[in-house]
Amino acid sequence: MSSATCIRTVRFDARQNAVALIDQRRLPHEFSVVATRDFRKTAEAIRDMTVRGAGAIGATAAYGLAQGARAFRGSDLGRFAGHLATVYRDLAEARPTAVDPVNALDSVLAAMRVGTSVATQQALALDAAERFAEEDVAHCTAIGRQGLKFFPHGTRALTHCNAGRLAFVDVGSATAPIYAAHAAGRKLHVFCDETRPRCQGASLTAWELAEAGVPHSIIADNAAGHLMQRGEIDLVIVGADRVLGRTGEVANKIGTYTKAVLAARHRIPFYVAIPLSTLDWNLRRGTEIPIEERSGDEVLNASGMPTGGRTAVQVRIANPSSCARNPGFDVTPAELITGIITPVGVFRPETLWKHRRQLLGETAETR
Amino acid sequence: MSSATCIRTVRFDARQNAVALIDQRRLPHEFSVVATRDFRKTAEAIRDMTVRGAGAIGATAAYGLAQGARAFRGSDLGRFAGHLATVYRDLAEARPTAVDPVNALDSVLAAMRVGTSVATQQALALDAAERFAEEDVAHCTAIGRQGLKFFPHGTRALTHCNAGRLAFVDVGSATAPIYAAHAAGRKLHVFCDETRPRCQGASLTAWELAEAGVPHSIIADNAAGHLMQRGEIDLVIVGADRVLGRTGEVANKIGTYTKAVLAARHRIPFYVAIPLSTLDWNLRRGTEIPIEERSGDEVLNASGMPTGGRTAVQVRIANPSSCARNPGFDVTPAELITGIITPVGVFRPETLWKHRRQLLGETAETR
Repeated sequence: MSSATCIRTVRFDARQNAVALIDQRRLPHEFSVVATRDFRKTAEAIRDMTVRGAGAIGATAAYGLAQGARAFRGSDLGRFAGHLATVYRDLAEARPTAVDPVNALDSVLAAMRVGTSVATQQALALDAAERFAEEDVAHCTAIGRQGLKFFPHGTRALTHCNAGRLAFVDVGSATAPIYAAHAAGRKLHVFCDETRPRCQGASLTAWELAEAGVPHSIIADNAAGHLMQRGEIDLVIVGADRVLGRTGEVANKIGTYTKAVLAARHRIPFYVAIPLSTLDWNLRRGTEIPIEERSGDEVLNASGMPTGGRTAVQVRIANPSSCARNPGFDVTPAELITGIITPVGVFRPETLWKHRRQLLGETAETR
Repeated sequence: MSSATCIRTVRFDARQNAVALIDQRRLPHEFSVVATRDFRKTAEAIRDMTVRGAGAIGATAAYGLAQGARAFRGSDLGRFAGHLATVYRDLAEARPTAVDPVNALDSVLAAMRVGTSVATQQALALDAAERFAEEDVAHCTAIGRQGLKFFPHGTRALTHCNAGRLAFVDVGSATAPIYAAHAAGRKLHVFCDETRPRCQGASLTAWELAEAGVPHSIIADNAAGHLMQRGEIDLVIVGADRVLGRTGEVANKIGTYTKAVLAARHRIPFYVAIPLSTLDWNLRRGTEIPIEERSGDEVLNASGMPTGGRTAVQVRIANPSSCARNPGFDVTPAELITGIITPVGVFRPETLWKHRRQLLGETAETR
């Protein structure tokens, strides 16, 4: 299993013109890599959650566009453009509410424009996709450098959901300082909220940490308050789906807000680690963030591996005649957040707007 | 299924000398009643969680002692006493950490002492057991009367775990004011925390409320904070495993403390509903309450019914090579609690000690 730690979540095999993805639907029970050999299959892998996480689906879409471009036979630039439009649409529509694939596709398309032949544009597409993936890794690595100082020897950290390397090309956002501290030889213990209803903490984050050899314990989402009360948690670190540049409010997986409220009560630092692409400079307040109400079936059921089984199954844990509410995300106000850890520095959330030149400048420069 | 609403969690069938129990291991997927025809089987039902909940296992033990006494053939008081000692030990040891069965057994034994023949003592045992069960129902009904005023028309309440009729002979503690308000024709909506890791909210509380026709939604334990933020919850009501008379601290299912912290932040009333037997007048502070660290397997797995299945199965939801921490209970400080709803009145938690004569007097009088 240790080989899994060397493998990126998303890679490109230029010889086979294939995108290689860690199959996240089979984790944590089975580690496998699937290779999609056609852009339609790559779009399908985004759609069916073989790959998930903002950075990871962005890079997958970028590679998918290069893959589609390189599959074109001929030299007619007009027909090539028509083909590219199809590839773009398929990949962009695979996860319609996500912004990362569209940003990734646009950056690859923009890089291709300087090419004057099909062959040059094909080569530029792959270069741009590789650059997109490398920058994702570089941004996460920089988050790790910025956050390392918050993880002295002996730190006991709590994290929620999965903002780990599986959500990016590698390294992750919330996990970046954890991996950096672990690599620096510091003793750590990470508590992983299981993160009902989809249990990304118990399955994906725990899998990642186990692969990397980082000591950790899974806990029920109910248990963190008690552990804080007993002085067993030193800090909380999470990722984010969206951070408002104007207010410092953080939208993230449901349950994040609860952990921030608990951390504030116990005067435990609460950090949010993000690449710059997570910053939203447009929305004026957190109540404008649309909160997806997901299917109640996620709450009424749980997925897992039966004893001695070889395929994960879904079981109904709830009363058969009852329904569930299932808001997918919540919004944490700036006052509960100690710092936003970005690749270019750590900021108090209410000061993001003041630093927007630095934050926007860096965005424009690297993406 | 509506017939289930008429059936007590624990009953006694004098003709068959059997204890009839709602089989809580099969809920929520199947409603069935098991009859234990021998005191050893009754002890086994306590041990294997066919019946759970403080009031319910207390009444089951009381009936079990009467059942064992009534099974004795002969008139030798010496041999009868030896037999009773065996019955007592079997029932008391079935759930060694619980205090309710022992209290119940002691109250039945005390009532039997005035009898001067085996036949009289057998009859007194059954009378005492029936009285114990009736008092459990009467206490819960009184909690409902005391708490009714907090549930005006349109109330949207949150509850955690199961402190419902399944945990008692009938009615429940946290559910008592809910059932009272529902019976009074008031419109209500109850949010049930699923209550990982054992999911008593999603399974037992939701089942109860569905049977009683009380509108409700199951939510992930992560979701309550968001719903409070959006103004969708008017109050929180929970039961308790132990309430310290000296400090007003409340030990209850893991996650209760988190909900109290959230409620305080949102200025939402937080009530704890208990019979007087839950009050502990000895311990001096909450940190003295032993917090059971339960098996991590409860967190790593979930139990439920596979699609099309007929038997519930356990599935591993967590990474196979990871471990879990699983504290079973937490302690909520008095400052976060709006009121303790008891059968004899509603008290601010820090005033319990001041009212101990009233609270102890009532305990001595009725038990």
